[in-house]
Amino acid sequence: MAEFREEDVRVGANKFSERQPIGTAAQGDKDYVEPPAAPLFEAGELTSWSFYRAGIAEFVATFLFLYITILTVMGVKRSPSICSSVGIQGIAWAFGGMIFALVYCTAGISGGHINPAVTFGLLLARKLSLTRALFYMVMQCLGAICGAGVVKGFQKSPYQQLGGGSNSVAPGYTKGDGLGAEIVGTFVLVYTVFSATDAKRSARDSHVPVLAPLPIGFAVFLVHLATIPITGTGINPARSLGAAIIYNRKSAWDDHWIFWVGPFIGAGLAAIYHQVVIRAIPFRSSS
Amino acid sequence: MAEFREEDVRVGANKFSERQPIGTAAQGDKDYVEPPAAPLFEAGELTSWSFYRAGIAEFVATFLFLYITILTVMGVKRSPSICSSVGIQGIAWAFGGMIFALVYCTAGISGGHINPAVTFGLLLARKLSLTRALFYMVMQCLGAICGAGVVKGFQKSPYQQLGGGSNSVAPGYTKGDGLGAEIVGTFVLVYTVFSATDAKRSARDSHVPVLAPLPIGFAVFLVHLATIPITGTGINPARSLGAAIIYNRKSAWDDHWIFWVGPFIGAGLAAIYHQVVIRAIPFRSSS
Amino acid sequence: MAEFREEDVRVGANKFSERQPIGTAAQGDKDYVEPPAAPLFEAGELTSWSFYRAGIAEFVATFLFLYITILTVMGVKRSPSICSSVGIQGIAWAFGGMIFALVYCTAGISGGHINPAVTFGLLLARKLSLTRALFYMVMQCLGAICGAGVVKGFQKSPYQQLGGGSNSVAPGYTKGDGLGAEIVGTFVLVYTVFSATDAKRSARDSHVPVLAPLPIGFAVFLVHLATIPITGTGINPARSLGAAIIYNRKSAWDDHWIFWVGPFIGAGLAAIYHQVVIRAIPFRSSS
Amino acid sequence: MAEFREEDVRVGANKFSERQPIGTAAQGDKDYVEPPAAPLFEAGELTSWSFYRAGIAEFVATFLFLYITILTVMGVKRSPSICSSVGIQGIAWAFGGMIFALVYCTAGISGGHINPAVTFGLLLARKLSLTRALFYMVMQCLGAICGAGVVKGFQKSPYQQLGGGSNSVAPGYTKGDGLGAEIVGTFVLVYTVFSATDAKRSARDSHVPVLAPLPIGFAVFLVHLATIPITGTGINPARSLGAAIIYNRKSAWDDHWIFWVGPFIGAGLAAIYHQVVIRAIPFRSSS
Repeated sequence: MAEFREEDVRVGANKFSERQPIGTAAQGDKDYVEPPAAPLFEAGELTSWSFYRAGIAEFVATFLFLYITILTVMGVKRSPSICSSVGIQGIAWAFGGMIFALVYCTAGISGGHINPAVTFGLLLARKLSLTRALFYMVMQCLGAICGAGVVKGFQKSPYQQLGGGSNSVAPGYTKGDGLGAEIVGTFVLVYTVFSATDAKRSARDSHVPVLAPLPIGFAVFLVHLATIPITGTGINPARSLGAAIIYNRKSAWDDHWIFWVGPFIGAGLAAIYHQVVIRAIPFRSSS
Repeated sequence: MAEFREEDVRVGANKFSERQPIGTAAQGDKDYVEPPAAPLFEAGELTSWSFYRAGIAEFVATFLFLYITILTVMGVKRSPSICSSVGIQGIAWAFGGMIFALVYCTAGISGGHINPAVTFGLLLARKLSLTRALFYMVMQCLGAICGAGVVKGFQKSPYQQLGGGSNSVAPGYTKGDGLGAEIVGTFVLVYTVFSATDAKRSARDSHVPVLAPLPIGFAVFLVHLATIPITGTGINPARSLGAAIIYNRKSAWDDHWIFWVGPFIGAGLAAIYHQVVIRAIPFRSSS
Repeated sequence: MAEFREEDVRVGANKFSERQPIGTAAQGDKDYVEPPAAPLFEAGELTSWSFYRAGIAEFVATFLFLYITILTVMGVKRSPSICSSVGIQGIAWAFGGMIFALVYCTAGISGGHINPAVTFGLLLARKLSLTRALFYMVMQCLGAICGAGVVKGFQKSPYQQLGGGSNSVAPGYTKGDGLGAEIVGTFVLVYTVFSATDAKRSARDSHVPVLAPLPIGFAVFLVHLATIPITGTGINPARSLGAAIIYNRKSAWDDHWIFWVGPFIGAGLAAIYHQVVIRAIPFRSSS
Repeated sequence: MAEFREEDVRVGANKFSERQPIGTAAQGDKDYVEPPAAPLFEAGELTSWSFYRAGIAEFVATFLFLYITILTVMGVKRSPSICSSVGIQGIAWAFGGMIFALVYCTAGISGGHINPAVTFGLLLARKLSLTRALFYMVMQCLGAICGAGVVKGFQKSPYQQLGGGSNSVAPGYTKGDGLGAEIVGTFVLVYTVFSATDAKRSARDSHVPVLAPLPIGFAVFLVHLATIPITGTGINPARSLGAAIIYNRKSAWDDHWIFWVGPFIGAGLAAIYHQVVIRAIPFRSSS
C-alpha cells in the first residue's frame, strides 16, 4: 500500500478516474485532505470510455444481482416445504452475499453501487457528478429488469403465482411500518458504505478498506434477516422496480412508492449523519 | 501501514484522540511500548467534540443493533412455523453480524464498544477514562431503549405477547446456570476484544488488526448459538436493559440482575486473564 | 507487499513459476504492464517439477472437493427429515466453503482452479499454456472421480438410491433452462475469478487480492443457493463428471452434456466480458 | 508488514519465541530460507514463562471450544423439534466458528493449535519441540475435559440422556467408514493449517497469512457438514476425549480409538503431502 501514488488511478484506458469507488479511492488519500466535491456536471466524462464502461458494469452487476436473488426466492417459494429449500435465511444470504461479491468485482470499475439509493447517498455527499449518478441509476434499473426477466423466462407460470420476488407491505403491518423499515434498513446499508469510503478514517484504520465489501454485504444480509417479514426488504429501488415491472400486478405497484421514498430518505439521513456528525464538515473552518 | 505516523491520529476535528479503538490504535504501537494507562478523569475530554461525537456514535450503533436484532427475533416468533422464518440460527447471525458491521463502522470514532461489558473490561485494563466509560454506558443504554422502542412501535400487541426479545432464564435451568452462561459467554467476547486491541500482539501478527471486527462479531454469533436456549443470550447489559424496559413485564425484571452481574464478571475475568496471564504485566520490572 | 520483487516467484524448487495463480501473481504487477500472453506450448514446462506438482495439487484439491461436498449431499438425502440435516443451505455452504478453503490452499501451487471451466476461461485469456490447461483438466477430472468414489465406498446402496450427488435438470424445467442456469452461474463464478486475478485492478485496489479466495468461494455458494432446485448446480464439469461416472445411471448421463457445454460457454462469456469491456484490450493501441 | 524485523518476535516477556504460530511466524521469513527444524528437546524452554503461558492459552482455548460447542449440541438435542433450534448446520458453525475465533486469539501466544492432531502434524514437520508438543496435548485434553464438564454441570440428566456430544460411529456405517472419515477430515484441516503456516508460500502470497484463521475455521466447519452424520465428527482427539470422559458410557468408549488413530493418521498424511509434494524438501540439494 505504501507505494500507492496519486497517478496510479489515472493509468490505462481511463481518462477520467472514477470518483470514490467503494473502499478504493480512499486509500490514495494519505494526506487526509478532504477530496474536493465532485462537480455536478463534468462535460469531459461523457467522452470517456471509463464512464460508459462503469455504466455497463453497473448494468451487468445489477442484472446478476436480480438473477441470483430472485431465482433463490422462487426456489424457496416453489419448494413443497420451506424446510427442503434454502429457507428464508438462504434468501437473506443470497441478497447479502451477492452484494459482497459484486461490490468486490465492480468497486474498481464503477465504485460498485448496484443500488440507486447508494448512488443517491454518494451524490448528496458530492462523491460523484449528477450526470454519472443519473446514468448509474438508469443502468441499474435496466439491469434489474433484465435480471428479473430472465428468472421469469425460466418458469413463467409459477413466477406469477408466487409473487415474482416483488416487494410489498405484509398483511398486519401499516404502510408507515413498511416505510419506516425501508428508511432504517437503507440507513444501515448506506452508513456502512460511507464508513468504507471515508478517506480520513480509512487512512487511519488500515483494516477498513481491506474488508470494505464484506461489511457492506453483511449489512444487506442483516437488514434482510430483520425486514423480510415486513416488506420482503427492498432497500434498493432498482431491485424493487425490476421485480415489479416483470411481475406487473396491482399488488406490486400499490406499495411501490415506498421502495423509492424509503431508501432515498434512509440514504439521505445516512449522508447527513456521516457528513455532519462523524466528519463534522459544517463545523470546520476550512476543508 | 508502514507510513503510519504518531500524529496521524491527531489530525482533523479531533482534539483528543480516542483511546484504543478496537483494532485500530494498536497499529500505531510499532515500538511495543505498553501504552500508558488512561487517566481516570481527563478534564480536557469534556470540551472536545470528538468525545461527544463518540457518544453519539455509540448511541446510534446500539440503536441500530437493538432495532435489527429485536426485529429479527420478533419475525421468528411471529412466524406460524419456525421453519418459514430465518430460524434460531438466523437470530444468532443477526446479533453477531450486527456487531461485526457496527464495530467496523464505529471503531475509528468511538472504539466500537456497543456494549457496557466491553466498556467495563477496557476500563479495568485502563484503556479509557472513567468519564468516557460512564458516558459510553449511558449512551449505549439510551440507544438500546430507543432501538427496542421502535420495534415495539411497529407491532405493539404481538411484541408484548411474544416476549419482546427480553432475556430471562429458560425453564429447566437454575439462576446459577443462567449466571454462569452469561459469565463464560461474556468472557469469550471480551477476551476476543482484548486479543484484537492488544498493541504488542497486533504489531507482531499483522493479520490480527486487519480482521479485528470479524472475530469479534463471530464471538457474539457463537455465544448466541450456545446460550440462546438458556438465557436468550445477553452478554450485553444495554441490550438486556433496552428490551426489558420496553417490554416491562415482571418476567423480564425478575432475572434482570443476571444480565448485568454476569457480563461484568465475565468482562472482568477476561481483563484479568489478558493482563495477568497473556501480557504478564504484574511480573514485569517496568512497563 | 512493498518489497515484492520480480525474482521472488522464481525462488526455490520452482524452475517455471505458475502463471497467474488466483489472486497472487497479480500482486507482482506493480507497473500495470499487461503480462504477456502465455504461449500455447512451452516445452520447458514439461521438465519442471512445479508443473507436475501443480497437477498433483489440482488432483488432491478436486478429490477433497468432491469428497466433502458429495458426502454432505448424501448426508442430507439420507436424513429421515431434511430438518434434522444441514439442509439445502448446508449443501450450498459445503460447495462454496470448500472452494474458498481450497483456492486459499492451492493458489500458490497451481493457481487454485479446481474446475475445468475456470481453467478454460483463463486459457481463453491466455493466462496459462494449452499444455498446462489440458493437464489441469485431466487431473481435475481424475480427482473428482476418486473423490466421488470414496463417498460411494462408504455407503454403496444408499448412494445409488439417492442419486449420488449427480447433476440433472429437475422435472418442470426444460433442458434450455438448465443450460441457461449453468451458463449464467458459471459466468458469475468466472467473472469473480477474473476480478481477483486482474493485474491492473488488483494493483490499484489493495483489498482485492487480500480477499481473493473469499468472494470466489462466495460466488460458488450463491450460485448453489439459486440453482440447486434447477440442475443441482454444476458450474464445474469435473464435479459433474466425477459424480456421473461413479453413479453411472442413464439419468445422470442424459443431461450430462449440459454440464460441459454450459460452464464452458459461461466461462467464455466471462472471459470476453472481462477482456473486452472491463480491460478494453482490443481498443488499445499497444498492450 | 514491510518493517517486520527478525528481533520483533523476541521482544517483551518472551525469552523463547513460539515456533510457527499459525499464520504468524511465517511472515518473518522474508528471505525464504527454510526455518531450521525445531530441536526435539530444548532445555531452555522449560524455564521460560512464555512456554507455560502458551500451555495455559491452549488450556483456556480448548476449554472454551468444548464449552461452546457441546452446549450448542445439547441445545439442539434438547429442542422439542430440531427446527426450533439452530440445527445441525448451527452445530457445524459452532465448531468451525470457535476454531476461527480461537486461532485468531491464541495464534500469537501458543500458535493456536487447540487440537492434538494439529500439534502432532506440526511436530512431524519439526515446527515445535517434542517437549512442547506433549505439553500442549496434555493441556488441550485437560481443557477439553473441563469444558465438557461445565456443560454437564448445567444440565446433568439431559446431558447423559442425549449423548453428551460424544463421538461414535453412527448405525449403518462400519468402523472402517468412521476411521476413513476421520482420516480424510483431519487431512483437510491439517493441510489447511500447513498452507497457512508455510513460510515460503506466505511470503509470496501476501493474502495467505492475513486470512489464516478464516480458512482454518472454515475447514473445520466443512468437515462437520460432511461427517456429522457418520461419526459426529471428531478430527480433534482432545474434543473426543473430553466428551467421552464426561459422558463416560460404554458407547462412547467403544469407538474411542478411532478418534485418536484417525486424526493422527490424517495429520501425518497431511504433513507428508505438504513436506514431500508441495515443498519437495527431500528432493532439494540443500535446505
